[in-house]
Order: sequence, then C-alpha cells, then structure tokens
Amino acid sequence: MNLKMKRILSGVILVLLAGIISGQESKPQIVEDFKPSPTNQPGREYPMVNSEGRVRAQIPAPDANYVQLDIGGVKYDLVKDENGLWTGESAPQDVGFHYYQLNIDGASVPDPGSLLFFGACRWGSGVEVPAPDQDIFELKDVPHGHVHEILFPSKSTNMSRRAFVYTPPGYQQETSKRYPVLYLQHGYCENETSWPSQGRANLIMDNLIAEGKAKPFIIVMTYGMTNDIKFGELRKFDIEPFQTVLVDELIPYIDSNFRTLANQENRAMAGLSMGGMETRQITLNRPGVFSHYGLFSGGVYSPEDLKEHDGLKLVFISCGSKERPGGVKNAVAGLQNEGYNAVSYISEGTAHEFHTWRRSLYQFAQLLFK
Amino acid sequence: MNLKMKRILSGVILVLLAGIISGQESKPQIVEDFKPSPTNQPGREYPMVNSEGRVRAQIPAPDANYVQLDIGGVKYDLVKDENGLWTGESAPQDVGFHYYQLNIDGASVPDPGSLLFFGACRWGSGVEVPAPDQDIFELKDVPHGHVHEILFPSKSTNMSRRAFVYTPPGYQQETSKRYPVLYLQHGYCENETSWPSQGRANLIMDNLIAEGKAKPFIIVMTYGMTNDIKFGELRKFDIEPFQTVLVDELIPYIDSNFRTLANQENRAMAGLSMGGMETRQITLNRPGVFSHYGLFSGGVYSPEDLKEHDGLKLVFISCGSKERPGGVKNAVAGLQNEGYNAVSYISEGTAHEFHTWRRSLYQFAQLLFK
Repeated sequence: MNLKMKRILSGVILVLLAGIISGQESKPQIVEDFKPSPTNQPGREYPMVNSEGRVRAQIPAPDANYVQLDIGGVKYDLVKDENGLWTGESAPQDVGFHYYQLNIDGASVPDPGSLLFFGACRWGSGVEVPAPDQDIFELKDVPHGHVHEILFPSKSTNMSRRAFVYTPPGYQQETSKRYPVLYLQHGYCENETSWPSQGRANLIMDNLIAEGKAKPFIIVMTYGMTNDIKFGELRKFDIEPFQTVLVDELIPYIDSNFRTLANQENRAMAGLSMGGMETRQITLNRPGVFSHYGLFSGGVYSPEDLKEHDGLKLVFISCGSKERPGGVKNAVAGLQNEGYNAVSYISEGTAHEFHTWRRSLYQFAQLLFK
Repeated sequence: MNLKMKRILSGVILVLLAGIISGQESKPQIVEDFKPSPTNQPGREYPMVNSEGRVRAQIPAPDANYVQLDIGGVKYDLVKDENGLWTGESAPQDVGFHYYQLNIDGASVPDPGSLLFFGACRWGSGVEVPAPDQDIFELKDVPHGHVHEILFPSKSTNMSRRAFVYTPPGYQQETSKRYPVLYLQHGYCENETSWPSQGRANLIMDNLIAEGKAKPFIIVMTYGMTNDIKFGELRKFDIEPFQTVLVDELIPYIDSNFRTLANQENRAMAGLSMGGMETRQITLNRPGVFSHYGLFSGGVYSPEDLKEHDGLKLVFISCGSKERPGGVKNAVAGLQNEGYNAVSYISEGTAHEFHTWRRSLYQFAQLLFK
C-alpha cells in the first residue's frame, strides 16, 4: 500500500468513525422536496425528483420479493410498506434526462409511472432532473414549428424508412420561402425519435427562433443504425449503408418534398456519440455535401482531416465536462491554429447523456447558416 | 333450476366426462404456429400470436412468485421454466389490436417486449392479432403522406395543445392546392396518438389514395378529454370545453396554417366511442360547421336530431358485429326513410376495439367529400 492509498483509507475510516460516534445511520439525509418528473405519464405522481437530483420511484407490487430502481448503472433497493407499496431513492443524479428501468424479482420492466423513450436499444422509462438552464427547452407560448413524421423510399435497403422533419414556425404559411437544413443523428441504440422526444430539438429551436437567436432552418432526424453494430466495435462500423441512405436517398427526398435551399452552403450535419462518429465519417467521405459539421460527444477532426474541404464554414465539437473536455478543447485549438472556423463547447456538470446534447444543439444552432 | 339451465348443466357434465374418459387434459390443444407480433419492440420475439389468435407472452423473472398476462379483462397464468423464464398463452382473441399488460407479483407493468400505445388512460403494451383484411393498413411501397405533430395555442385552456395532422401525398409539393379536412377523435382514455399509432390512420389513407379509392384530404387528431370524465358518467359529460377548443381554436388554426378548403362542405367530423359521442354533440350544437358526420361505436342520430342541418351531406354510423349492430342498422334505416344520405357499416367478428374503428375509417374515408 502506497502513501496516497493509506491517506485515502485513513480518511474513509475517520468518516465512518464520525458517523458511528455521532449516532448517525449510514443512510444519507434525504432532502424532502420531491416533485413529480415532467416526463411522467399523465396524472402520475411517481417517479419524483428532489433538489439533490435523487430519483424516488414507487410501485405497488404486494407479492414481490424485491423491487429495485435501476438508474445510471446502479440498482437501488426499494422498501415495501404494509400496503404492498414499494418506495425508494437513487443517489443524486446529474441534471437532465436519464434512462431507467424497474427490476421486479429479476424482471427488468418499464416503470408504468413514466413516459417511454427509446434508448439502450429499447423503449423504456426516463426521468428529468431539473437543470438551471431547462428554460432552453421548455414549452413556451411562442410560435411552434411542426415535427413531420415522414416515410421515404429507400432502394438500397428495399423499404420505406422513417424520419422526423422539424419545419420552423412560418414554414406552412410562407409557401415561397426556402430554408437551410440540418441533418441531426441520434446515438448508439437510440433512434429517430430520440432527438424530437428526449432531445427536445423542436422546442429548443422554437425558443431560439422566438428570441431571434437562431436562423429558422429545417432539421431532419432519421434512423442511423442501418447495419448491426456492437458497442465495443463502433470503430469498425461500416458507414457505407447509412451513408447511402442519408446522402443518396434521404437528402434528394427532402430536397424534392420540402422547400429547402438545396446546396452545400445551406446544409449541415451533426450527431451525438455514434451519430457524431457517423457525421465525421460521412463528412470526410463526401466533402462537398455539407458546410457545417457538428460532433457532440462523438470524436474530433484534425486539421489534416479537413484539408480538401472547400466550402466548409464551421466545425463545432462539444462534450460534457464529465467526459473528456481536454480532448475537445485541444482539437478545436488545433483547428483554429490552422485557420479553421472551429468552436468548442463544454457542457458543465454533465456526462455522456442527453442534457449535454440538448445544450450542444442549443449552442450549435445559434452558429448555423450565418 | 329451470329446464334450460338443467340442459346446459347436463351438457357441461357430458363434456367433462368425455374429457376424463378420453384421458384428455383440461388444457386446450394449442396450435404451435406462433409468430412475433408486428407491434413488438425492434428485435423482440415475444409477445407472439398464433393462427387461433392466442397471445403468448414471455419474460425472464427468476425470483417472481407469479407472472400473468392481463388481456381482454382476463389474467392468464404464465409458467416458469428452470431458467427463470415465464411463458404462457391467452385464450383466442378477436382479430386486430388489443391493449394488454403483464402482472408480476401484483405489479401491473408494460411488457418490455411490446411497443407502447396510449389506451386505458396509460401508455401500455399492445398486440396485433392477424386479420384477413390487415392489408388495408399495411406499410406499402406507395407515396406516403406526412403526420405533423403540431402545438396550437388555446386561450380557453391557457396552454399550447398538441394535435397530429395527416397531410396526404402531394401536399408538400403542390403548394397551391387546397384540401378538405376530417376532424377525427379518439375514445375514452385514449389520446391524440391513438389514431395515428394503433389506428394506423395515415397508412389507411396512403393506401386508399394510392388505389384511387379516396379523395386526398387532411386529417386532424387532437386530445378530446379537456375535462375530467368518469367512464360511467360519459352521458353527463360537459362538451363545452372541448367544443370550444375544437371549433373556436383548432379549426381556425388549421385553416390558417394548412392549405384547407375552409368551409362546411369540405369539413367532416368523426370519432370512435367517446369520440363518437363528442362528434354527435358537437355536430348537434354547431350544425353549420361540418357536412359529413361519422359515429364509430359511439351512438346514433335520429331523424329529429338532424332536422335543421342544412348542408349535411353524409351520416355514417358503424360498430363491431360483437357490439349492437341492430341499433346501428335501425338508426340508419330510420334516417334513410326520412331521405338522409345515411350509411351503416358493421365490422364482422370484432367488438369495441380498434380493428372495428380502422375498418370504419377505411369505409368512411371512401365516402368523404364526393
């Protein structure tokens, strides 16, 4: 045992002793200011969240042997009362949106109290921990764009594929105006609903446009996992099938079915996590298609990567402060040194989760098509 | 005990004796041709459905005391194998879509194998029993309309309210063409997602339009439970708050944000169950607004009801053959006798469930705006 470890161990023992001497239980003091999560099903009180970011779940399961709240990779035991109602809390969670499940006697199931969100390759529960900046994606009394669910033909995959298309306020009325387009990708084991649902992309845009902070543009969100990918093998991922769907099928469909400005200058691509990797690969393979690139927690570009990128106007690279902000900042500094218009953004106090990416979209959108 | 009951009892005893003599178990012979339901989550095998319409559920719950499949008002026990996997079947169900849940040791939860649908006042599981006519709502290689998720301002309820708006194929490109509109309501404890999701309204329309069987029109689907209603007290339901939202707020919003033919002749209203009752009440209260009325398993009109309805072009009344088809047929015959253009439709072999209403929309849509 080295000196550093000894010091840590002494500290732990001191804390434990202090707890025993003062007569405190090992259970933490929980602040009793829980409120229902805004992601609950209509009329449902649980799950609730307190000001510490603890999530409290509750479910009636009178004949269960155990019930657990499974969130952030940890299973927290719930406690049964005399009516068969199980209740319990997680440790404090980061601000923003988190996927979770309940575990009832070994069955991993959605919480019937929560709305359902697609993540972790399944429709499951989600909970929202209040954030100081949640105002950026709240539903406000401002003009709202539409989110179109569309089915577009894809010859390469021999099927109709689904996408969601955000058209900004005014799109339906001003029928001669044309708009730039952002192609925005979800992450590994998410799908085309993730950005308009937990990502709140439409509300972020409605609010930015109402405040005059972003130019109105169209956002196209489709499913990016066109072949089987194992999480550990993302770097071996063959981008070709999705690149064909996106560049050769979806973009022409959007350009002929929506009033777009159909050129490189007015076309952006961004994505989160695996969607950032897809953005990076597709923009490198097809340098003339997009002019604004955004990687949210999904890799970086080097100056060498972008040498032949005529018409490139912006590179935006972001991540959470609990990820690897140093790597993002260094990459962007390197690009700036070589004269690229590169911007970094670090989401304070968040990790590899959707709040990082909502904030990234909020920042990125203000820089687009200007 | 009267003679009839004695006869029934003798029959039951004979059947039981026959079973014992022939050595059969009481468990029914199950046809082993189960296939995954098309409403399953991506990549999930269960629930499955066989050619009898039995639903087979399966879930791992190694430490559970019991697991049940809760469908059609009956709870069916699942059986545990040596790996902690619970499996079991329901009795045969009617063709079409059914809501269901799992019960794990007294906890009523969604099945993680199923996609989620809003019904019974909650997001829960759904399963699809193959129907001979499922072709009418299948996703085909035809031009597809869009389903717009919109948020419209409502002064009377002091909030932004959500609606889904189906625009037919061609709407986005032919920017000078205007279209008729159908306002289409969900049932009790469903919501504005029910018609575009389990109702498959957009696919029914895409297919009808591709075959030239229906005129292209817009469909608007919004939430109809603007005040608290108890199921037993539906007839005491105060229609005023929803009528204000629909007629005074949503219709003007749609007419100024979509390219509609904004007059009575080109405006229809229909609904299922409680939505049929809403349709009936609103059309009776506001006779000049709509020209085509549709009640799907949701009441009837008498000739007296419609006396002052200038501009009325069509009354369509439907239900399942397992509901009260006689009442529907009589009401329509009564209207026809008085010279109204009234049409009845009975969905063969279905009850008060969504397959009845998909078929009703399929029939009704072919008669609209012609």
